[in-house]
Amino acid sequence: MNGQPISSRIADLYGRLGPLISFFTESTWSHRQGQPGISDFVAGNPQEPPLPAFVETLQKWALPQRNDWFAYRPNDDDARATVAAVLRERRGLPFEPEDVFMTTGAFGALAAAFRAVADPGDEILYVSPPWFFYDAMIRFAGADPVRVDSRAPGFDLPVDAIAAAITPRTRAVIVNSPNNPTGRIYPAAALEDLARVLTEASARAGRQIYVISDEAYSRVLFDGRAFSSPTAFYAHSVLVYTFGKVLLTPGERLGYLALAPGMPDKEQVRGAVFLSQIAAGFAFPNAVLQFAVADLEELTIDIEHLQHKRDRMVPALRAMGYELHVPEGTFYLLPRSPIPDDLAFTELLAKNDVFVLPGSLFELPGYFRISLTASDEMIDRALPLFASAMQEALSPLSAPRS
Amino acid sequence: MNGQPISSRIADLYGRLGPLISFFTESTWSHRQGQPGISDFVAGNPQEPPLPAFVETLQKWALPQRNDWFAYRPNDDDARATVAAVLRERRGLPFEPEDVFMTTGAFGALAAAFRAVADPGDEILYVSPPWFFYDAMIRFAGADPVRVDSRAPGFDLPVDAIAAAITPRTRAVIVNSPNNPTGRIYPAAALEDLARVLTEASARAGRQIYVISDEAYSRVLFDGRAFSSPTAFYAHSVLVYTFGKVLLTPGERLGYLALAPGMPDKEQVRGAVFLSQIAAGFAFPNAVLQFAVADLEELTIDIEHLQHKRDRMVPALRAMGYELHVPEGTFYLLPRSPIPDDLAFTELLAKNDVFVLPGSLFELPGYFRISLTASDEMIDRALPLFASAMQEALSPLSAPRS
Repeated sequence: MNGQPISSRIADLYGRLGPLISFFTESTWSHRQGQPGISDFVAGNPQEPPLPAFVETLQKWALPQRNDWFAYRPNDDDARATVAAVLRERRGLPFEPEDVFMTTGAFGALAAAFRAVADPGDEILYVSPPWFFYDAMIRFAGADPVRVDSRAPGFDLPVDAIAAAITPRTRAVIVNSPNNPTGRIYPAAALEDLARVLTEASARAGRQIYVISDEAYSRVLFDGRAFSSPTAFYAHSVLVYTFGKVLLTPGERLGYLALAPGMPDKEQVRGAVFLSQIAAGFAFPNAVLQFAVADLEELTIDIEHLQHKRDRMVPALRAMGYELHVPEGTFYLLPRSPIPDDLAFTELLAKNDVFVLPGSLFELPGYFRISLTASDEMIDRALPLFASAMQEALSPLSAPRS
Repeated sequence: MNGQPISSRIADLYGRLGPLISFFTESTWSHRQGQPGISDFVAGNPQEPPLPAFVETLQKWALPQRNDWFAYRPNDDDARATVAAVLRERRGLPFEPEDVFMTTGAFGALAAAFRAVADPGDEILYVSPPWFFYDAMIRFAGADPVRVDSRAPGFDLPVDAIAAAITPRTRAVIVNSPNNPTGRIYPAAALEDLARVLTEASARAGRQIYVISDEAYSRVLFDGRAFSSPTAFYAHSVLVYTFGKVLLTPGERLGYLALAPGMPDKEQVRGAVFLSQIAAGFAFPNAVLQFAVADLEELTIDIEHLQHKRDRMVPALRAMGYELHVPEGTFYLLPRSPIPDDLAFTELLAKNDVFVLPGSLFELPGYFRISLTASDEMIDRALPLFASAMQEALSPLSAPRS
């Protein structure tokens, strides 16, 4: 019991997330976001006009077809059937509608998954550098996050390190492929290895270890690459998806969670996920979005254009002296900072209205992340400024505080 | 640590909510919902066409005005300013925009409030009969629910019983006025009494007790009554609101949480609420709904029509022999079941396609709840069936299992 005005749990989380929250709510970027003239590479946010078909779809499905159009709408049957059909067709796996749960994006699906399977004291492993909220969300769900590092430059799925980090308390491993921020797509062989490791570890512990498969970027693939899902290799996998990436509409909260076709004990897990959705705050997508799922499944942003931006920026940055690998998917480039202090370097870029995400905010100091959702015009403007920032950072006279 | 496929916490919750979940997902009503010919008095759900202006508003604000229209949208500034201005005007209290947090309905606001202030081991008091998810949501947030009974027929705010239930672990008291399911509006005097009790108890414990004020029905008032909010009497009050009642659109998740103007330690509480919204799963309303707030604030369903339905049903039911009080607001009538077993009696109604909510599902066995959101046509059809069910229940030959 504490005498503070807020809960100890939230105070603890606030301490941990302080730098990230400050960046998103108090940094120069947070105040300049959306203003003309800046080059915004920070978040996976739209910097170009939305898809007209997305707008038309929202308007179409806002029109009521029945009296109960805007009634409470948990896990709409038609939306679930559509998702299952699309997964069957695209993946060749027999997903069932009753195993699909409509969520408020991947965020909502992760929250439901953590609560459905993990108790206080349970450990959930994640691979670092991670999507920035895994740690906080695992703690918020009452479980203990365990970090496992992936190594530059390949940032492969660290199966051996995961195996070494497993304890009798391990309840789940988060796999994020295509990976934010590294842009890696984990190959099927690595997922098979992981499945073997987890099957053995589960048997040893007498308790099932789940894979929570964050597939937010599964349709943002470059160079004609294919995507492999853990759900194809490991029956205790929970698929997490959002429409916020493929449509670049993260403000309209729509995603889903799906149980892998071969999962045992499905009846119980289904009930647990549903209850988790309810008790978390009726965390279902808006009725209109659920009605729109079949239409939205047909839409995508221009992935070739995204790839074109990658293929323009990677060689240009390398020519300036930046070290970076070529992402296989997602929105992101991940260059090394020319100086060890990525916060100082990104401040240097920010002075010239070029905004990127410092690696220190996602457990990868010495790097920064560039989102390819920036417009061509922003890239035009920013490239010479990336070059001059490199020069400035390396000049002994103007060296920043690092 | 458990060897089960789901978390112990969720399994426990599932056990507690079993009957309610079964009713919503497996009962005759759940399968017949939305079908023609039934009379549906179960939930606060629309049984008549949506407001055309609501549809127009959704379509209007789906049209992008900027590139970032569908970008991540936590607590939109304009929406917060609108809500604060409306509260100032309607309540005469100096609410500030920074104290308003946009939520996915009252459900989302409650979840954020519980997490922001309460730790495991903390107690949150609620008045029974309650809205059915308080207990589950308090547990889901890791705190301990403490039930305090209000007494028929008045169902007054039980200030003395609340005072008696307070312990050093008490962290919050949920006040729901106008009350679901009783339809009571707690008078200002009762709220002043409660404020005095909580101020003294907080001083004794050396720790602040919050009021979480569930004001979902604050605009669903009958007979020209006024509504009093705890936020006017007690500075440690958190206002919880949803647009889902006044617009009868619970499938479009929009509401807010607002801190009472005089609350101390506001800076910390603001941070805690915001972080709670993020970590719970980016639980902000869709961008389109947040943009629409100013327009939506102008709309309401026809409250006079609702009152007219109340004024038609109450005397009709009384004439048949039902005992019930006259609600001062909300959607609900709360008759006594003619026989002690409300589940058996509501089954009897269900046989004739009249669906109501048994009191056993909300801690009030021997009663049932009727939602006035049913259409006039449903009421026409149901009234004779309420009469015959009363006859049947009281007939010794056809007495049900109770």
